[in-house]
Amino acid sequence: MRLFYHPAQMGHAPERELHNGDWVPFAESPDRLAQILAVCGGGEEARDHGMAPLEAVHDPDYLAFLRAAHDEWLAAGRQGDAIGYGFPIVRRRKLQFERIDAKLGAWSMDAATPIAAGTWDAAYWSAQAALSALDAIAAGDRHAFALCRPPGHHAGADYMGGYCFINNVAVAARAASAMGLGPVAILDVDYHHGNGTQDIFYEDGEVFFASIHADPVTDYPFYWGHADEQGEGSGEGTTLNLPLPRGTDWHGYQGALDQALEAIVGWGARLIVVSFGADTFEDDPISSFALQTKDFSRMARRIHATGLPALIVMEGGYAVSALGNNVAAFLGGFDVRP
Amino acid sequence: MRLFYHPAQMGHAPERELHNGDWVPFAESPDRLAQILAVCGGGEEARDHGMAPLEAVHDPDYLAFLRAAHDEWLAAGRQGDAIGYGFPIVRRRKLQFERIDAKLGAWSMDAATPIAAGTWDAAYWSAQAALSALDAIAAGDRHAFALCRPPGHHAGADYMGGYCFINNVAVAARAASAMGLGPVAILDVDYHHGNGTQDIFYEDGEVFFASIHADPVTDYPFYWGHADEQGEGSGEGTTLNLPLPRGTDWHGYQGALDQALEAIVGWGARLIVVSFGADTFEDDPISSFALQTKDFSRMARRIHATGLPALIVMEGGYAVSALGNNVAAFLGGFDVRP
Repeated sequence: MRLFYHPAQMGHAPERELHNGDWVPFAESPDRLAQILAVCGGGEEARDHGMAPLEAVHDPDYLAFLRAAHDEWLAAGRQGDAIGYGFPIVRRRKLQFERIDAKLGAWSMDAATPIAAGTWDAAYWSAQAALSALDAIAAGDRHAFALCRPPGHHAGADYMGGYCFINNVAVAARAASAMGLGPVAILDVDYHHGNGTQDIFYEDGEVFFASIHADPVTDYPFYWGHADEQGEGSGEGTTLNLPLPRGTDWHGYQGALDQALEAIVGWGARLIVVSFGADTFEDDPISSFALQTKDFSRMARRIHATGLPALIVMEGGYAVSALGNNVAAFLGGFDVRP
Repeated sequence: MRLFYHPAQMGHAPERELHNGDWVPFAESPDRLAQILAVCGGGEEARDHGMAPLEAVHDPDYLAFLRAAHDEWLAAGRQGDAIGYGFPIVRRRKLQFERIDAKLGAWSMDAATPIAAGTWDAAYWSAQAALSALDAIAAGDRHAFALCRPPGHHAGADYMGGYCFINNVAVAARAASAMGLGPVAILDVDYHHGNGTQDIFYEDGEVFFASIHADPVTDYPFYWGHADEQGEGSGEGTTLNLPLPRGTDWHGYQGALDQALEAIVGWGARLIVVSFGADTFEDDPISSFALQTKDFSRMARRIHATGLPALIVMEGGYAVSALGNNVAAFLGGFDVRP
């Protein structure tokens, strides 16, 4: 399976994040990418598709904010990583601001997604990696892997959050639809609910979104991913949330996976875009599922068994020393002929 | 003029707050109350009016959260002050959570309003001070002063923020209406927009809300207080926002004050509840207006000149060493016969 990434993705390196009331070292580190590359034996450099596919998902003003944010932070006399501290939880609307702190909150869902000097370039090329892997699918490959980092599934059309800035799966899914590769279904198997992806397609019946994740009653992002969220308007019924309790192992996981895949196939998908997080791993430091490395192979084989082409997009996974092996196990599950 | 407060209000003493990307010492300190009391020569202890007047404004589940939050924080193994880090900026709805971090974000608009061990008692008695001062008005006093702290005007019906937990002016205004003292108008002269108060009465035509404040394009709370926010539904036209630029002195301020008072009188108010912040003072450390101590007397005399009874409720003001004098100057402006 071809693997796509870009060296600029290493440039996003915040020092710290706000977690459970205090600073902790930033968990979504550049080492994650290096670890995966090392185990997978390298990859191909992503090709530049420009801004248009990003603007097909995100508000261009949000993208302009992201690009300028850290420079504005420094210009305001601040040091280190930029985060906001106030958030438009009611009557949210688009406004013009002069102050960087206002902008940071206006375009964010949390105070835990720091912007550093290299963030924009890394996020831009992370999305380009997803688009480059999609090109491989469009050229006939059955499977391709986008080594995206920073991840994307918490980012909405006009907000960042949860280490995410540009929604890589949403960019790829919309581009795939435009290329005639659809109907596209997104399967999100990261430990955390992909609230940004859900939000982008919540009223859009052209893309199916299924997510298996830790119950938001106990786990980030808390406010989305509950089982009763099923889409609205023309997207009614094309969102499927399968929250699972902390401690879930493969025995508890596989039924939800089968249910999601049946829904995707039943809906008529012709392409699966997978938001793949390895933070369902038993030793993940910020998550509480109990999958083992071999379970990632099992998971992949079930997706593979649908017979649908699959674009794999990297999301979370913070047990860095095991990350390469977990990703390799997942990708290896697609090597077996169904 | 009678002054009401309660010693329990001193018990709210967080160590630090998140401001412009890092921890700073908590600006809304207990010393603020002590300073005002010292200059004013003490006051009367607030009387307990129970939970009902608070529940007439706030979601009872929100109040229950506030009361339990710091205990839950400690029970989760955390130390120090409780703050949230993720916020329901889209599709906000009422959900049940098991984790304190989820609850903190669910009931907050910022990551800058820490809850400490004594916060609930202080917030409860701060509101009781407002209700006790209202009793003095109901008994015939033309003016009364509630030395509220923590302040209230950023708190909505179901969220805290901006150092505020219970909206003291809203509690007093709704109680005053219920006592037949209305129609009630709230005049907010704090440096920061009183977004919580606005939100509580935004669709309620029974209470008029007028606010003079720093333009939210540059100043907290950023997302509310813009001039085009004028109320909705039966509250259409009963919200008046008069944002002013940084650097505004009395020369620039007085026209907005006259405009607000004309609107209040023209609307037919029979009682003014004043959200009084002394953070419009030229030396305030976190604000950028340029009023002088004597200007607070001028401000009060203009309010007094409407001939309406006035309940004064304390909000912000962080130049602690000057705070007592600024409050005394304001209160003194009501001693002159109109």
